[in-house]
Amino acid sequence: MRNGSNTSENPQNLKFGLVIHGGGGVRDKAVFEENPELEKAYREKLHEALAAGYEKLKNGGSSVDAVEAAINVMEDSPLFNAGKGASFTREGKNELDASIMNGKTLRAGGLGAVQYVKNPISLARLVMEKTPHVLLVDQGALAFAKEMNVELKPADYLYTETKWKSLQRRLKEDVPYGGKLQPKTEKTKKDPVTGSNDNKIDKELFGTVGAVALDKEGNLAAGTSTGGRVKKRPGRVGDSPIIGASTYADNRTCATSTTGLGEIHMTILTGKDISAQLELKGTPVQQAADNTMQKVKLRLGGGGVIAIDKDGNIGISYLGDGMYRGYVGVDGKIFVKIYDK
Amino acid sequence: MRNGSNTSENPQNLKFGLVIHGGGGVRDKAVFEENPELEKAYREKLHEALAAGYEKLKNGGSSVDAVEAAINVMEDSPLFNAGKGASFTREGKNELDASIMNGKTLRAGGLGAVQYVKNPISLARLVMEKTPHVLLVDQGALAFAKEMNVELKPADYLYTETKWKSLQRRLKEDVPYGGKLQPKTEKTKKDPVTGSNDNKIDKELFGTVGAVALDKEGNLAAGTSTGGRVKKRPGRVGDSPIIGASTYADNRTCATSTTGLGEIHMTILTGKDISAQLELKGTPVQQAADNTMQKVKLRLGGGGVIAIDKDGNIGISYLGDGMYRGYVGVDGKIFVKIYDK
Repeated sequence: MRNGSNTSENPQNLKFGLVIHGGGGVRDKAVFEENPELEKAYREKLHEALAAGYEKLKNGGSSVDAVEAAINVMEDSPLFNAGKGASFTREGKNELDASIMNGKTLRAGGLGAVQYVKNPISLARLVMEKTPHVLLVDQGALAFAKEMNVELKPADYLYTETKWKSLQRRLKEDVPYGGKLQPKTEKTKKDPVTGSNDNKIDKELFGTVGAVALDKEGNLAAGTSTGGRVKKRPGRVGDSPIIGASTYADNRTCATSTTGLGEIHMTILTGKDISAQLELKGTPVQQAADNTMQKVKLRLGGGGVIAIDKDGNIGISYLGDGMYRGYVGVDGKIFVKIYDK
Repeated sequence: MRNGSNTSENPQNLKFGLVIHGGGGVRDKAVFEENPELEKAYREKLHEALAAGYEKLKNGGSSVDAVEAAINVMEDSPLFNAGKGASFTREGKNELDASIMNGKTLRAGGLGAVQYVKNPISLARLVMEKTPHVLLVDQGALAFAKEMNVELKPADYLYTETKWKSLQRRLKEDVPYGGKLQPKTEKTKKDPVTGSNDNKIDKELFGTVGAVALDKEGNLAAGTSTGGRVKKRPGRVGDSPIIGASTYADNRTCATSTTGLGEIHMTILTGKDISAQLELKGTPVQQAADNTMQKVKLRLGGGGVIAIDKDGNIGISYLGDGMYRGYVGVDGKIFVKIYDK
């Protein structure tokens, strides 16, 4: 976790940066110790995503370009729960959610529960740029994808054996969230807002990918893409396509993207909650991210958030053992981390 | 518009109240002057909705019960753009959006782009109470409605001649928003965040209904239901089912519901924006509602918002000539207003 510091304004706008995540559900260290090639594959793919986004920023591309490029790399990899490698609904389908937001115009685009789209983040960008709408879902989103001639793939392209087995295991369990029930603890009993939400969260739920960027022009952007919760109901839309829940970008404050249990981010409005602290209290972005993740923790939401503010300060906050993540700044030096390193 | 005052805490929780809106797109006064029966019909229906919600609160029912009861009355009336009387998509269908939130548990439920459901707010409540999800859309939402045995209606039940004619007029116009283009003014040019969003908003877009309530137990709830924008794309989801954009409820702050151009509320996160001001700055609810509607105005979003805080203070703020609205407090005295009275 890197502490953002409240640096001075940068009127030349020479500062730019990119932060990405590949989900908060990191595998147990033991898994990677047994299979170092797998850890290497994750690290290389995160590196490749950062390099793709950095290339855009370095050459004067927009933060929207950088976010899209970085997320496309992760969508095309079966390692993450987005695009290829998406989780399955309880009926064995891949329904994809994604959104993108431009912090300069405050316009945004998203899609929920759409099938067959190879790169949902790119379709979300078209919703933002080619329609007056913010969110298209299911059949209407697919019709729009066809209109825009974006690349569609048959169901077997999105299929991965890992995610299919994950669904099969969960179909045998009689738990509503796709997670395991956790006994009530004194802590959850005392929590004034948790209510009946006392489930232990299954790590494999958290493979969502996201990116936030600040470009040379000082414009922020954010994007998020996911296959959603394993064993979700058909038609379930999570936080990834909901502006303010996950993706948020406002040039006056910051850009954010989340991973974790969508339903919790959707009611806390994690992205907007962080932005509001910067706007109303001038809270540094790292502190704001930590404050909001504490709210998520109280509601047992898990996962994490990445953020970058209008001055290029980074905020990364997560619950649990780690989060697939990385960042790159003006100098092009790429940092990739999974646990605390 | 009533100014909320920052009254003292009410530990006995004897205070309760309900505020409703029937949309910000009030008809020109001239229309009602020519047709006083129509104005009377609106006022009577708003009165009936408030009475239905008050009945619940008075008898110790929950704020969720009151919100649902009030909205059901408006959904069943062809006067409002929700349930019967919903707007049509550009393909001539009624796709309904709704959501509800419980400020005690912070759980919420919503549905987007669902057809045939007589009372979307009641289905949203079932999403909240019977699933681990917050938002279901389109085919998946309809499948859930069938599972829950909620009342479905054939397409001709939701049909109203007024809304059909409204669509036919707009289909002849080559404007993307279903509104009329407004020439760029000095003001819109200067607006830093409006971007290309320089359309004059068509009043008939704003028939969404909503309710916010505080019950005897001190629990807040909010709900919103709509047919959405006339001439919208199939599968378009607006702000009404998005928690934080329109509907929001948190016992620590307030409950909100919006009407207006959904896409603007979705990127400002109008409900959460108001709640954050109460949480982070202690802003009185009326002032917070006015502050947020100023952001909406800068982006030419139109419409309005209703709110009630944890102490029963009311905040009502709207742009334009008026908003169908009303409120009722502990004494049962019902106020209904359209313009400034």
